[in-house]
Amino acid sequence: MTQLLIVGGSDAGISAALRAKELDSTVTPIIVMADDFPNFSICGLPFFLSGEVADWRNLAHRTKEDITLAGIQLLTNHTATAIRPQEKVVIAVDIEGNEKLLTYDRLLVGTGALSNRPHIAGIDLPGVYFLRWMADSFAVEKHIAQFHPKSAVIVGGGYIGLEMADALVLRGLNVTLVEHNPSVLKTVDPSLGEMVRAELQRHQVTVATGVSLETIQQQGNQLKVFGSNGFEAIADLVLVAVGAKPNTHLAQTAGIELGMTGAIRVNRKMETNLPDIYAAGDCVETWHRVLNQNSYLPLGTTAHKQGRVAGANAVGGNQEFAGSLGTQVVKIFDLAVARTGLRDREALAAGFDPLTVESEVWDHKVYYPGAHQLRIRVTGDRQTGKLLGAQIAGHYQGEVAKRVDIYATALFHGMTVEAINEIDLSYTPPLGSPWDAVQMSAQAWSKASHNVISVPESVRS
Amino acid sequence: MTQLLIVGGSDAGISAALRAKELDSTVTPIIVMADDFPNFSICGLPFFLSGEVADWRNLAHRTKEDITLAGIQLLTNHTATAIRPQEKVVIAVDIEGNEKLLTYDRLLVGTGALSNRPHIAGIDLPGVYFLRWMADSFAVEKHIAQFHPKSAVIVGGGYIGLEMADALVLRGLNVTLVEHNPSVLKTVDPSLGEMVRAELQRHQVTVATGVSLETIQQQGNQLKVFGSNGFEAIADLVLVAVGAKPNTHLAQTAGIELGMTGAIRVNRKMETNLPDIYAAGDCVETWHRVLNQNSYLPLGTTAHKQGRVAGANAVGGNQEFAGSLGTQVVKIFDLAVARTGLRDREALAAGFDPLTVESEVWDHKVYYPGAHQLRIRVTGDRQTGKLLGAQIAGHYQGEVAKRVDIYATALFHGMTVEAINEIDLSYTPPLGSPWDAVQMSAQAWSKASHNVISVPESVRS
Repeated sequence: MTQLLIVGGSDAGISAALRAKELDSTVTPIIVMADDFPNFSICGLPFFLSGEVADWRNLAHRTKEDITLAGIQLLTNHTATAIRPQEKVVIAVDIEGNEKLLTYDRLLVGTGALSNRPHIAGIDLPGVYFLRWMADSFAVEKHIAQFHPKSAVIVGGGYIGLEMADALVLRGLNVTLVEHNPSVLKTVDPSLGEMVRAELQRHQVTVATGVSLETIQQQGNQLKVFGSNGFEAIADLVLVAVGAKPNTHLAQTAGIELGMTGAIRVNRKMETNLPDIYAAGDCVETWHRVLNQNSYLPLGTTAHKQGRVAGANAVGGNQEFAGSLGTQVVKIFDLAVARTGLRDREALAAGFDPLTVESEVWDHKVYYPGAHQLRIRVTGDRQTGKLLGAQIAGHYQGEVAKRVDIYATALFHGMTVEAINEIDLSYTPPLGSPWDAVQMSAQAWSKASHNVISVPESVRS
Repeated sequence: MTQLLIVGGSDAGISAALRAKELDSTVTPIIVMADDFPNFSICGLPFFLSGEVADWRNLAHRTKEDITLAGIQLLTNHTATAIRPQEKVVIAVDIEGNEKLLTYDRLLVGTGALSNRPHIAGIDLPGVYFLRWMADSFAVEKHIAQFHPKSAVIVGGGYIGLEMADALVLRGLNVTLVEHNPSVLKTVDPSLGEMVRAELQRHQVTVATGVSLETIQQQGNQLKVFGSNGFEAIADLVLVAVGAKPNTHLAQTAGIELGMTGAIRVNRKMETNLPDIYAAGDCVETWHRVLNQNSYLPLGTTAHKQGRVAGANAVGGNQEFAGSLGTQVVKIFDLAVARTGLRDREALAAGFDPLTVESEVWDHKVYYPGAHQLRIRVTGDRQTGKLLGAQIAGHYQGEVAKRVDIYATALFHGMTVEAINEIDLSYTPPLGSPWDAVQMSAQAWSKASHNVISVPESVRS
């Protein structure tokens, strides 16, 4: 009977507990967690704040009851303050300051990430919010309910900033989005970032790019913000969403090593340097399948997969995490933007010889009503012809998300761009083309690379 | 300078011509074709007849001008009546009966398929139609315009029959669909077929399954139909859509061998038994990648791929057709139904040890508005754990088509069902789940197979 102790009740922790229990019914997983919201979809917070999710309780992937019924014990509102690896003990403190000693045979650290706090004067003023955990979300909701803000400044044009712009517009606020890069959504190439900007502007969001926010000041009941290039704005609410960093304090003080990225170093079995201690999710380094090295990619999908591997191994399995491809998608109003793998400059930095080719293709036969144009950027290696990555932007009903997943599945298997044309994909005029959009874009890449087939010299008779 | 002659101006022929020209600009492809509609999307005919495509000209994948500009010569309204392989000549006859001798260095036979004509008394009566080529489509359209039919009987509950039921309901007709199998869309399992039946009935289509149509009689201005089990109906129009058979007469009389399926036998280079004669598309046997043998699967996607391989090889390439997975999708009203690979009984017949597990999963997080439930059936092999096939039915906006393509891409690579969980797929709450629907269904299969991980005995400590 293995005692599996898990610190953290979000995706990695719950996933590990469920998998361990599934594979070994004698294990007794205990999850110690700082708040009272196990297995909550933190990716869902913007949709609660938008009003689209009426009841925050629905954001739970599973209820407490589901989790308990699966044979998992929850110790909520307990903060793990120390790990003593020699004694195989974790110390947890409840909200009244009482200490508990928790023993383990196997330990999983799933402490997640913390919001980055940029150097902005006045960032601690009332009315300035971050968004990572349920408590953050409740604070914003309470502010909206209490003060009925008419306007908001969002700092950061990444996934959460963009989703919150969408959410607050739905709530009727005037929104200004501030991003220090020249285009928003810097995780995709600028031509797609500009489509996001256009979609924001189409919904009356003011987009200020190339602006670093420097100061926030109270001005009456409002907040006045100042940034580089003379940027100024006044709003009732400021939301700061400039990324996350691994929450490693607990691990570090216990002697668990960090990697180059500042996150907990793990091997592909999700083992740390200390015996019987695993780590998974937003607090760890993630093995990147295309880069063939570790990176920091805090994503719920990855946390689930890593937790599942750690959970299996904690009960004697021998599983390896297959690696992240960096696959991501975001929906902003009617636009979906997705990516998988590497972009040109990332591939170049990793020693590839990349070529990126952009195509505009229809999601289905244009003669059938409702066709949406997709912009697809395919990145491949000129030397090997291999797919390195793909980016897609277009109407969310254009199956953008699952199209990027076709590329992701191809990338998982190390396919060449040209070989994507060989896959027997589905077709009916209302939902595709005889060569699917992902294949038309692959063909455009092949043509541009002059590597039209794998043995070009042999085809000219 | 290679003279490439192509018989047939539909998907396979055009695809071959374009690919040949792309790889060898000196080639002069000539396409001889029986009608005047090169590169028309015959999959689009129901959407023309539904009124959704206002102008039939829009059904062309490319216009005549596009094709000619690509350096391809079209000889329309010419029927190829004979191939003389020794002389490397094809005889073509124009609509006035004049013969032409066309020489070739390489020949591609892309003669397509013919509508099956079941043994039904009265099948040649006026008001009874088939649907395969543009001329069929014009005949139906003319009938509707002239006689304003109020009702139709459709014989056959396959792809075209179902799409035409949808189309004629949109045109305001009362539709009765007759299918001799116990459920419609027999290319998927009955539980999905029943979803199709419900969707048809939701749109006031009368569905008569288990009925073989036997007789059609004129009754005043109407047609009365009689079938097995005492089935009778009266309608203004009868449409027969009971599948297709390879059009092989030209090839056969020239000494080109047929395969076991009655279609032209080709190897994976799309070569026939005769030197310098290739064949592709609905007239040939198709190598099935999972069955590892030939089958008859007349689909536009396959025709395009085979044509592309034949076109490359006709100008000196050395390409092989990677094989069909039998991937298909159809949209009927709001329901999309898709499949790839093998179903249980097909897998059993092929010597596998299949298990099929059905799951009901949401297309995206159910807390976000507009979630659709998908029914997914995963078929895997108990011995090897390998994916053999998948079927999905659900609202067409639930990304059914591209989800089946994720399975298709996995199947292309011979993945195990369990390994599907390792693929880094995209996620955002409005468009997916941390484990995508395709992965949740894979996990359900794994659990049911008791093959939860590849080395189950090692995980219990």
